[in-house]
Amino acid sequence: MGENYTVGDYLLDRLTQIGIQHLFGVPGDYNLHFLDHVIRHPEIAWVGCANELNAAYAADGYARCRPAAALLTTFGVGELSAINGIAGSYAECLPVIHIAAAPSLASQHNGELLHHTLGDGDFSHFSRMAAEVTVAQASLTVENATTEIDRVIGEALAQHKPVYLFLPLDVAAAPAGTRPYSLVIPEPLRSDESLQAFTTAATTMLSEARSVSLLADFLAQRVGVAGQIQHWLDKTPLPHATLLMGKGTLNEQHRSFTGTYAGGGSHEAIRAHIEDADVIISIGVRYTDTITAGFSHQISSEKNIDIQPTLARVGGQVFPAVPMSDAITALENITAMLSPRWDHRTITPPALPQSEHTDILNQREFWQQMQRFLRSGDILVTDQGTSCFGAATLRLPAGCHFIVQPLWGSIGYSLPAAFGAQIAEPERRVVLLIGDGSLQLTVQELGSIIRDRLNMVIVVLNNEGYTVERAIHGPEQRYNDIAAWNWTQLPAALGANEDEILCEQVCSPAALAQVLEQVNAVSRLSLIEVVLPRMDIPALLHTITQSLETRNTVQ
Amino acid sequence: MGENYTVGDYLLDRLTQIGIQHLFGVPGDYNLHFLDHVIRHPEIAWVGCANELNAAYAADGYARCRPAAALLTTFGVGELSAINGIAGSYAECLPVIHIAAAPSLASQHNGELLHHTLGDGDFSHFSRMAAEVTVAQASLTVENATTEIDRVIGEALAQHKPVYLFLPLDVAAAPAGTRPYSLVIPEPLRSDESLQAFTTAATTMLSEARSVSLLADFLAQRVGVAGQIQHWLDKTPLPHATLLMGKGTLNEQHRSFTGTYAGGGSHEAIRAHIEDADVIISIGVRYTDTITAGFSHQISSEKNIDIQPTLARVGGQVFPAVPMSDAITALENITAMLSPRWDHRTITPPALPQSEHTDILNQREFWQQMQRFLRSGDILVTDQGTSCFGAATLRLPAGCHFIVQPLWGSIGYSLPAAFGAQIAEPERRVVLLIGDGSLQLTVQELGSIIRDRLNMVIVVLNNEGYTVERAIHGPEQRYNDIAAWNWTQLPAALGANEDEILCEQVCSPAALAQVLEQVNAVSRLSLIEVVLPRMDIPALLHTITQSLETRNTVQ
Repeated sequence: MGENYTVGDYLLDRLTQIGIQHLFGVPGDYNLHFLDHVIRHPEIAWVGCANELNAAYAADGYARCRPAAALLTTFGVGELSAINGIAGSYAECLPVIHIAAAPSLASQHNGELLHHTLGDGDFSHFSRMAAEVTVAQASLTVENATTEIDRVIGEALAQHKPVYLFLPLDVAAAPAGTRPYSLVIPEPLRSDESLQAFTTAATTMLSEARSVSLLADFLAQRVGVAGQIQHWLDKTPLPHATLLMGKGTLNEQHRSFTGTYAGGGSHEAIRAHIEDADVIISIGVRYTDTITAGFSHQISSEKNIDIQPTLARVGGQVFPAVPMSDAITALENITAMLSPRWDHRTITPPALPQSEHTDILNQREFWQQMQRFLRSGDILVTDQGTSCFGAATLRLPAGCHFIVQPLWGSIGYSLPAAFGAQIAEPERRVVLLIGDGSLQLTVQELGSIIRDRLNMVIVVLNNEGYTVERAIHGPEQRYNDIAAWNWTQLPAALGANEDEILCEQVCSPAALAQVLEQVNAVSRLSLIEVVLPRMDIPALLHTITQSLETRNTVQ
Repeated sequence: MGENYTVGDYLLDRLTQIGIQHLFGVPGDYNLHFLDHVIRHPEIAWVGCANELNAAYAADGYARCRPAAALLTTFGVGELSAINGIAGSYAECLPVIHIAAAPSLASQHNGELLHHTLGDGDFSHFSRMAAEVTVAQASLTVENATTEIDRVIGEALAQHKPVYLFLPLDVAAAPAGTRPYSLVIPEPLRSDESLQAFTTAATTMLSEARSVSLLADFLAQRVGVAGQIQHWLDKTPLPHATLLMGKGTLNEQHRSFTGTYAGGGSHEAIRAHIEDADVIISIGVRYTDTITAGFSHQISSEKNIDIQPTLARVGGQVFPAVPMSDAITALENITAMLSPRWDHRTITPPALPQSEHTDILNQREFWQQMQRFLRSGDILVTDQGTSCFGAATLRLPAGCHFIVQPLWGSIGYSLPAAFGAQIAEPERRVVLLIGDGSLQLTVQELGSIIRDRLNMVIVVLNNEGYTVERAIHGPEQRYNDIAAWNWTQLPAALGANEDEILCEQVCSPAALAQVLEQVNAVSRLSLIEVVLPRMDIPALLHTITQSLETRNTVQ
């Protein structure tokens, strides 16, 4: 062991042990020495980002593809720049380990007037802020470091939420005393009695049903039971759907998959398959406003079996201490027994609206072409705007991973998140669909993508500003305009060589088809600017924005 | 009055009444209706920014030129993106009024699962975070709105710090009941007795002195007494200096101005003029690490008269409730009486290091040319890196306003801050000096500058990465590299027409001289990329980074 094995090394070893091979962040003088250890570490790679918010988004994207992600920022300026990204990981349940490098304990103790402080000698402002958007925090000292690192990382994995490690530079450099043993991750509370009672209640409800539908959403993916649900549906093909937030959790090519459910904003066939069943099983679902067209879902608790990460409900009755996976196993057994009685038609998911075969490139034509373009295994990333609500109507190829952030809904998120996903999954094709308004918020990360020679496909939907906001309110107001950029000139400005990148603006259906063919033919970074009518929006987005505007308008 | 005069209108009228004519921010669906009122307001202009952090930086820059600034963001995602900028305004004492638009009170009361929330029904996470970096906060309701708006804005002006207004959309739209009367700003505590005791103590100390020097810094500028000090120095020419943080507060062409004081990092002549005096009067100074070369200033309290915004000290003895302006008036009178005894030489500030007249464009040559380029009335904005420490050695023309952020030290700050300053002072020339590393963090605001056709001068010091970090630690480490951009191609990509912009890369002294001449000849947006050796740094920065590295290195 010896003096040379530091707390910083211990932390890095622990990260690699839980499946993290990359550390996202931005250097700063309180983290430079620790960064020397990062660079030297054989199993972890440093991924420098253009700014800290982008680094946090990239870590979030990485955590959607790996067991967890890690982010390194410097004290004050760095961690606060990143905090909106961490809050997004909290809202959407991603285990991101935020390491905030800090001045030495002695400087803190003396209340020195250091740069990156508020100048008031109080070094804990930012830790208190972090506590609002993380589930566990530790202020590391030489004495508590290894124990606290393990506790906090364990909570991130157990709760699928971000955590915060406050790492003074002298603590990072102090001897660790031990290398990490295997990590104990807190288990969810488990009551056999409660599980038994749940099973009985569920059996009773399901026995009386003549039709049963299933909704699975993002928490099923986060808890890691998507495979288990898929296996169950393969044996017992209940009509099923996801919501937008969990799109891609289940195989959309499955014979009983019906589409993306969005409450009253759903295609009528999808709504009927889900809501009109006698019993609706929901797993890992949270009904937030934008994915339910403003809480327009009609799922009464009397006919609902609801499975959450640590508890279950049958007809409104709560069964605590039932882990999601146990509840699913129970339902698998019950439905295997009862399902022969139920309707087992093969479902044909509703097709996309047909394009009109004109020369106008509009949203309808665009989504038709995207449907044909996507391949099995793609990672599709969309921003909170026309792109995600349009993508909701796609039927994803098998094994397609879909990344979207509809609850936190921070525009600009998707470019750095796509970068993080591509770092996590270098062998898969990442396809990013992002609006021009969103892309301006975080555009500098395109420079990192070019630097790292990542062959992503970036489709910029140029509709001249914040179309999603126009659709909600103020279609002609200038606050929804943005600066007009020349998107196809941007990659060269950010360092791309002409022969390394495919960069095109398309304005017609034929041009789009041609360029997508080119993208499929060669593997290189592609930036396709798709010029779309300014007020043309996908039908689902229309329904949703109308409901938001109604709710935002004071009566 | 009537129903149509809303709380939102009241707030906007109050802002214009205190000298704010622009509102910076980003639209979001919780602030769109309020934005309609902003657009309609005859005296306030909406300045849409590319993202919220940039908007906060722009507001900070604006507040350095106007009595205060205002920022509008949306709930959660928007306000948290901006919060690092607000923290900077807190550290550096700028009154920025942050208006965070929020969902309706009814939605909050019902704990709805809305977008931009953490999904836990708690709508006050972000207000609690804001309370760490603002001096006053209000959660506005229909009942308290006008009173609370006035209280919070009054505190911003009285304390020169940011404040937070949480504005639910239904409250913004509710009738206000009244238009704003004149605002009562809390006065600092004032004790005649304490002032008298201070005057006596200061007279005693100064009577025994044979030489007296004066240091004024940023708080003198923030409190608004710079003109008063200048007037005093015109009558009583004490040898004086500012620190980097307050550079530009006083006229650097004054016959007894000695330069920028930086503790042990100062030019020896400046150090001697200040530290070797029998008595040192300091006004609005805070000795933070980066502006004192790591606390290397030698100013013992026994020979120091220290004036702070609300108290004064003489030889370590504290006199509370003495406002800065009263203390200055007292010292003005005492020194007028005593100063004939003191040394009144005209001081020649140390010249910049001479360039070697080679063909190599280095830091030394660059700063020589900048010294000649700057004009009276310019607003010079520099980032926290080689640019601000190089600029420290400039002797500013009279009436030159200098903007820098050395305490908070958030890299990337200066581009949006320069944008905000130019919006505040459309008639003045804004010159921004920024490194390539810093500029990548916030580059999208260049698009807003182009959109608004602002004729700023932007000088990009391209030294291939984070040179200031290299100078501290890890000169050859790849974490200090950044993606290599083609800077001169960027303006066109961000929407600039070729004939509207002067865009050049320069690599030699002659080329730099030529392009600066061109800049002076025409008034248009200019982006000059100055290619500098990677490890070449200004002498002051060398001293400072060595001290930081020593402090960061664990013994």
